[in-house]
Amino acid sequence: MPLLVTGSIGIDTVETPAGRRESVVGGSAVYFSYAASFFHPVRLVGAVGDDCPGELLNVFEGRDIDTDGLERRQGSKTFRWHGSYLENINEAMTVEVDLNVLAERAPKIPDHYRNSKYVFLANTHPALQMEMLCCLESPRLIVADTMNLWIQTQREELAKLLHKIHGLVLNDGEAKLLTGERNLITAARQVLKMGPRFVVIKKGEHGCLMVSDHEDVFVLPAFPADRVVDPTGAGDSFAGGMMGYLATQGTFSPATIKRALAFGTVVASYTISDFSLAGLRATDRDHIDERWHELKQAMSF
Amino acid sequence: MPLLVTGSIGIDTVETPAGRRESVVGGSAVYFSYAASFFHPVRLVGAVGDDCPGELLNVFEGRDIDTDGLERRQGSKTFRWHGSYLENINEAMTVEVDLNVLAERAPKIPDHYRNSKYVFLANTHPALQMEMLCCLESPRLIVADTMNLWIQTQREELAKLLHKIHGLVLNDGEAKLLTGERNLITAARQVLKMGPRFVVIKKGEHGCLMVSDHEDVFVLPAFPADRVVDPTGAGDSFAGGMMGYLATQGTFSPATIKRALAFGTVVASYTISDFSLAGLRATDRDHIDERWHELKQAMSF
Repeated sequence: MPLLVTGSIGIDTVETPAGRRESVVGGSAVYFSYAASFFHPVRLVGAVGDDCPGELLNVFEGRDIDTDGLERRQGSKTFRWHGSYLENINEAMTVEVDLNVLAERAPKIPDHYRNSKYVFLANTHPALQMEMLCCLESPRLIVADTMNLWIQTQREELAKLLHKIHGLVLNDGEAKLLTGERNLITAARQVLKMGPRFVVIKKGEHGCLMVSDHEDVFVLPAFPADRVVDPTGAGDSFAGGMMGYLATQGTFSPATIKRALAFGTVVASYTISDFSLAGLRATDRDHIDERWHELKQAMSF
Repeated sequence: MPLLVTGSIGIDTVETPAGRRESVVGGSAVYFSYAASFFHPVRLVGAVGDDCPGELLNVFEGRDIDTDGLERRQGSKTFRWHGSYLENINEAMTVEVDLNVLAERAPKIPDHYRNSKYVFLANTHPALQMEMLCCLESPRLIVADTMNLWIQTQREELAKLLHKIHGLVLNDGEAKLLTGERNLITAARQVLKMGPRFVVIKKGEHGCLMVSDHEDVFVLPAFPADRVVDPTGAGDSFAGGMMGYLATQGTFSPATIKRALAFGTVVASYTISDFSLAGLRATDRDHIDERWHELKQAMSF
């Protein structure tokens, strides 16, 4: 069941109370792919500019990540983001952002990706997300992320997308903005009326909740981490862990999604334990499985 | 195993997006007692002024709450609090507060309360909390609450108290203030070094976490409530549910405390569903047990 992700590949500069890293690899598709590849092979679609140092993408070496869909675009520049968590470790303040290649045409999906069954559309313009879907033959599970900007400026396009996807992953602020509801359970139920069969609301350090059209409500705390170095990519790693596990299961019943969300939570806990991809690079599937059981244990009563 | 609570009894005026209630019953000891009495008989210690309308305290009628320790002090006025949740449903803004009788001497503990085994010291000046303890013969479990004001102004007195209690319940902001730690797990471990054998950090709508000297970390989301009318008293009801259940168990192993915290979470979910005590008055132990299982189910994966 091949898993396809499309999203950003970026060069990040990050400041947190634990230190600063200059020009490290980042971007939603990068965190997602790495996280998902603990579970399942991944097909990556994205673009960088001709300024992107080759060694930055060495992170994919040795991982089961197909990068045929990674376009190196001549004359373009790579997406760059400079964020700071000095004031609040739980919320990035964007110091500077250059969309660069992200503001250009969407990257092309290679022909041999068209049979992908599991698809994650990381956050980008909803029209581009729709465009991706058109190229796929018969996807079984489509999950998308979105952001405030599109909720505010592209509501019609977003509404169309919501009718084409099975699951939506978004954070608490976005859920409130999208629905006008202050209460997250009510907000999640409103989102279901817009099309998706399940919605996952991410609450950062406070975990997540999931509501499905089976009338099921699921609440999950974050993994109780005592070391938070850099929260960048936590949400994308969470989605990667979730989708990676789902792709191994071939079903998306509420029970399967719940286990998947716990895997997403665990994978994200590795991401935040170090800068850039270092936390993910330092772990493996065995440690993830072990921590998954620890999470289960820390919640049991 | 009699359960004793000492704390405030107040006349509240509350505004929330759902409406406004004028001069309704409130106060930490009132919410605590009502919540705990679903599980176990309660002995209440507190004081009101001679301005307190008798019918305000009718809430205790028919409940297994001993009010011999409830002092009606001539010439004094009852504690009054006016709070607003109009800007943020999760955090009260104090519009007006009159300590009145709370700023006077501590209420007297009746002689027949001295054999109480389970004790909850709701938030007040740590010296007064200590004074209460001196009157007790052989308490088996002492749990206290505190607040920013005492952490900032009465640190020495608080330090003494922390060596006399078994458990501390406080909210996330207070835990950070008390320890200087931003991370809540690290903060909880720091608190353990100050004396208590377990610490519960309340995170409001985001649930709670508990760390004990058994090296145990427990994380619990709030009950997924789709109706939040008035959060006043949620923390005290949470503590009441927890202590009420613990008093029925006669042990405080981590496993017992975890089940107790889930009961506290459930009881608090009734409190926030209506104004003042109306949410608690509309439920019973059977419904609480049912919702306890629903919470367990909503967290299982």
